[in-house]
Amino acid sequence: MASEKITELEFLLSYDILKQLTGTMERTGCSAADIIEQALRQFLSARKDGNAVYLSAPINALVEGLYVENTTIAEVRQHGDFGLGTFNYLDGEMLLLDGRVYQIRSDGHVYDVGDDERSPFACVTFFSPDTLDDINGDSGVSDLATILDGLIPSPNMLYAIRVDGIFSSVRCRAASRSENYMPLVEATRDQSVFDFHEVRGSLAGFYTPAFMASLNAPGFHLHFLAEDRRRGGHLIDCTIKEARIGIQHVPRLDVGLPVTLDYLTVDLTRDIGEDLEKAEK
Amino acid sequence: MASEKITELEFLLSYDILKQLTGTMERTGCSAADIIEQALRQFLSARKDGNAVYLSAPINALVEGLYVENTTIAEVRQHGDFGLGTFNYLDGEMLLLDGRVYQIRSDGHVYDVGDDERSPFACVTFFSPDTLDDINGDSGVSDLATILDGLIPSPNMLYAIRVDGIFSSVRCRAASRSENYMPLVEATRDQSVFDFHEVRGSLAGFYTPAFMASLNAPGFHLHFLAEDRRRGGHLIDCTIKEARIGIQHVPRLDVGLPVTLDYLTVDLTRDIGEDLEKAEK
Repeated sequence: MASEKITELEFLLSYDILKQLTGTMERTGCSAADIIEQALRQFLSARKDGNAVYLSAPINALVEGLYVENTTIAEVRQHGDFGLGTFNYLDGEMLLLDGRVYQIRSDGHVYDVGDDERSPFACVTFFSPDTLDDINGDSGVSDLATILDGLIPSPNMLYAIRVDGIFSSVRCRAASRSENYMPLVEATRDQSVFDFHEVRGSLAGFYTPAFMASLNAPGFHLHFLAEDRRRGGHLIDCTIKEARIGIQHVPRLDVGLPVTLDYLTVDLTRDIGEDLEKAEK
Repeated sequence: MASEKITELEFLLSYDILKQLTGTMERTGCSAADIIEQALRQFLSARKDGNAVYLSAPINALVEGLYVENTTIAEVRQHGDFGLGTFNYLDGEMLLLDGRVYQIRSDGHVYDVGDDERSPFACVTFFSPDTLDDINGDSGVSDLATILDGLIPSPNMLYAIRVDGIFSSVRCRAASRSENYMPLVEATRDQSVFDFHEVRGSLAGFYTPAFMASLNAPGFHLHFLAEDRRRGGHLIDCTIKEARIGIQHVPRLDVGLPVTLDYLTVDLTRDIGEDLEKAEK
């Protein structure tokens, strides 16, 4: 029975995955159909409600100055088409929008990023908003925080947030390429700040519960990209004219732990809350 | 081309998953073969080095007294064949060994657990040790901690730990079925303590870095099950005669966030470290 099915699969699958499949069939006693069905069920549902916020590393490692990790952009994109982060040597701000990865450098320019580039920290998900809300009239960044607070039903959940609209003003920063091991609070003192006016664009980011602060920046964390894809950065301040806010509830957190010697030997016992707050400002 | 392949798949897959598959093909433009291959690659590799420690909920919710969640044992088993946890209403200690789920109740008996039972907290993985070490001669629980400390190369990684051997003595506890909302530190005051002598059995559990303390019990957390599968509990103390220690490095953490009203509205801002330490003793 099983061998019959395998014959049917031979033209469908590469040899290496077929070999793994038959190995798993022998080990578990499950049929090819059972395994494929279970795999498809997980794979297809992961793109819907089984969705996770994926962190390529715990943020406390970044705060301690670990700016060189082995995670490639290709790997990051396996876990999401939306999100933010940074690049090795803290070389600018990362923004992922509709599956494309942008690097906003301290020179003020936005670069397309190849799959082989590497990141010490990225936070991504497959974006599919559960709610859409329109706002009109001038809203400052504190108004935006209040509006977002009102839109998220619980502080204990993760949310992906996308804001598309027209901004009267946006103030952004981009971290400068930095030496490895320089603590984040020092490294971000040397950053570029940009002001944009009357600009159409998108904010992309997350809300993270306070009790996960050692893993991801707690509260709201948003990066901006102009519609022309030529300006952007880590959001410091803004005034929104009109915008559509999409919010996705994400009931899962998925954290990669780097296996670099630096990560394995760094002291992560310090409470990084204060440093992170300073650095994110 | 795609429709040809779908015909071949019709006898393999249930209708609902076939429908999802064709939906995804239309949306992404990928062929059935591509999607199945990607799904199988993820599914089969998740059982190898892509392995995660899966938490069905952050442990701080349990510490605050949330003992009723919707996670079924069937769901827990999708994420591992090895681990520990508890059951709804804190009704005893959970141990997962070789894919079977055991419930050690405060009456001292060990029960087999059905897939429909529910758990407010479980921590599991697919166990496949990276290292095996034998120990001989009397080792107390503090010796065991020292030995395990020596075997784990970094305090910043997650490890699954299995100890099979002969124990001169084991002291275990099992939590008593408790009212929902009673804080863990109070609920575990009412627990049963068992002493076993000259017993063959297994310890199963994890090492968790201190910076993840809001999500999982930090340090070493082990549950015991006798070889006869009739005695066990949360490990308090032991003396090991001889044992084999298997350790698996797990470079990923996967946390489910419950979507129950209780979870979404509970206050999780408190530092639960001290309570957890008391409750785990």
